[in-house]
Amino acid sequence: MLAVDQTASSIREDMTGRATVVLTLDAEGGDNAPHEIVAGALEAASPQLHILLVGRPEALEPLLEGHPNASNVEVISSRTVITCDHEPAAAVKAMPDSSIVIGAKTVAEGRSQGFVSAGSTGAVLAASLLVIRRAGNIRRPAIVTTLPGESGPVALLDAGANADCRPEHLLEFARLGSAFARTVLGIPEPRLGLLNIGEEPAKGNELARAAYKLLEASGLVFVGNIEARDLLKGAADVVVTDGFTGNVALKLLEGCASSVFRRIRRAAEGSLRARVGGLLLRSALGQLRRSLDPEEYGGTYLLGVKGLVIICHGNSSRRAIANALRFGAKAIERGVLAAVESELARAENKLPPF
Amino acid sequence: MLAVDQTASSIREDMTGRATVVLTLDAEGGDNAPHEIVAGALEAASPQLHILLVGRPEALEPLLEGHPNASNVEVISSRTVITCDHEPAAAVKAMPDSSIVIGAKTVAEGRSQGFVSAGSTGAVLAASLLVIRRAGNIRRPAIVTTLPGESGPVALLDAGANADCRPEHLLEFARLGSAFARTVLGIPEPRLGLLNIGEEPAKGNELARAAYKLLEASGLVFVGNIEARDLLKGAADVVVTDGFTGNVALKLLEGCASSVFRRIRRAAEGSLRARVGGLLLRSALGQLRRSLDPEEYGGTYLLGVKGLVIICHGNSSRRAIANALRFGAKAIERGVLAAVESELARAENKLPPF
Repeated sequence: MLAVDQTASSIREDMTGRATVVLTLDAEGGDNAPHEIVAGALEAASPQLHILLVGRPEALEPLLEGHPNASNVEVISSRTVITCDHEPAAAVKAMPDSSIVIGAKTVAEGRSQGFVSAGSTGAVLAASLLVIRRAGNIRRPAIVTTLPGESGPVALLDAGANADCRPEHLLEFARLGSAFARTVLGIPEPRLGLLNIGEEPAKGNELARAAYKLLEASGLVFVGNIEARDLLKGAADVVVTDGFTGNVALKLLEGCASSVFRRIRRAAEGSLRARVGGLLLRSALGQLRRSLDPEEYGGTYLLGVKGLVIICHGNSSRRAIANALRFGAKAIERGVLAAVESELARAENKLPPF
Repeated sequence: MLAVDQTASSIREDMTGRATVVLTLDAEGGDNAPHEIVAGALEAASPQLHILLVGRPEALEPLLEGHPNASNVEVISSRTVITCDHEPAAAVKAMPDSSIVIGAKTVAEGRSQGFVSAGSTGAVLAASLLVIRRAGNIRRPAIVTTLPGESGPVALLDAGANADCRPEHLLEFARLGSAFARTVLGIPEPRLGLLNIGEEPAKGNELARAAYKLLEASGLVFVGNIEARDLLKGAADVVVTDGFTGNVALKLLEGCASSVFRRIRRAAEGSLRARVGGLLLRSALGQLRRSLDPEEYGGTYLLGVKGLVIICHGNSSRRAIANALRFGAKAIERGVLAAVESELARAENKLPPF
């Protein structure tokens, strides 16, 4: 599957005929920068995945030296770092030499198709909007996250980019999420649900009730309200909500899964019998735990800007960074950016502008 | 601890000198009515806990007959049942002979101190507001639910009574929750948190940012924003949010815990080694599972009306109903209703009216 999207000019054909994806990586963002970030880059880089690594060359180059994969990594110089203590939008404007702003610029200029960062989420969002800019007529780019549903992945959005939303924003999220599910998750006709506190159309707060009507008339495969207790059961492939509720839901799932596993560990220390049981079950539980770990899914995506932006956890390990790069490359190859654009163009021809 | 509250007239001293609590139970509400409901009543009833059982006498009396505990249960006749298909407020007005309306009336008339129902949540809420009525100057009665935190119970509210809220409602929830935590959970100075999508005061949606300021100035022990991933870790004893987010959070926790346990069961069937491990660990996991089960906590409470209202799951078993009655009686004995009233009276002397 070759990528066909607005940054196609930056795609180089390699010897095997497969398109090479170029992604930019913020080497200065996150708790484990730059060591783990660089290690993740070296793990994921390949002739098919070229990485632009943004940071202080004097810190990065020694970490790359002599590595067999270093030829697939290119260092782009930045001088400063925006941290979580900075006010995001102000910092993006005031710090043009920061790794986040310089990284975003490589995407804006078409040198790269996406930007991956474990730095300040707020600053990455601000740079995406101010430097990379919105795609097409998108109003509210949204964060989509892939949840480990019991019968397959579930795309939830917005997971935190827009704390206050209007009903038409949720409709836009539905289109972004459907394009994502079709291309990245490979679901030809994604079933769309609205996160709500009851099944009936009249349930919920004002926002949810109004969004229900818009989704019903959207032409998408709308399966109605999804109660939070059924989110992981797989009643819908794409679930939309406002960015406040979505972020609470995402973090609650993380917290709940960790809490249950901590308690299991404690329960497995309760008696000799339980200890032996815990030992025998350890590998199966470890596997399960990894399947529920958001790092396995390679972070969360910001959709709706002119490039793919991947926001990683601040505490990302090299594994998380490498996964984010690989998933990002796959998403680009599968044409997620073009799918977003065409889904929205299709909607505009059908629906009155909002 | 003797109950001292506004329904003190209904308290009868029994032979041991301990006050008898009177609770009303909707025998017609829930998927398992009336059999499981009546069985739960018989399990919980005692000389210290007298139960008014509302339903069709011809259906209830045969279920009570000959049971040694039947003398602590009194049947109150109702003829109709409000179901989830009825529009709640309209049904409460139109069906005065329904079990929910007649049950609520026993509380309004001071014959009972609380009402327990596994029937339509919407109808129980509507009857609480329209028949039992708000306590004191309460604007928005709220549903409080007790979550199984890792270092003890965490009270979350509003868990679904008010889908759309203003900042001052969250302040009221904070006072209701603090009174609940002091009396029912036995925490002398409950730490109060605001459910939010970041730790800093400026994080969140408009509602959360405005509520933060009110909570900070409330005189309560406000520990700031609580991120959803830390909700179960015990950073706060009482966590407030709007009823939409709170209901999503509550149901997501239920869904996540069930999902993890279903997956563990599947993982424990994967190999002989895992199967043996699963068998040895079964009793410890079963215990853990029960400790995470909302039924163990006996349902959720509606606070802020003139009586204690307990809303049980529609699929409540006899155990869930018996727990709800026992927890309700304990809450009444510990003076939760008086604590709510005095917390709000105290607040009114301190703060300008909102």
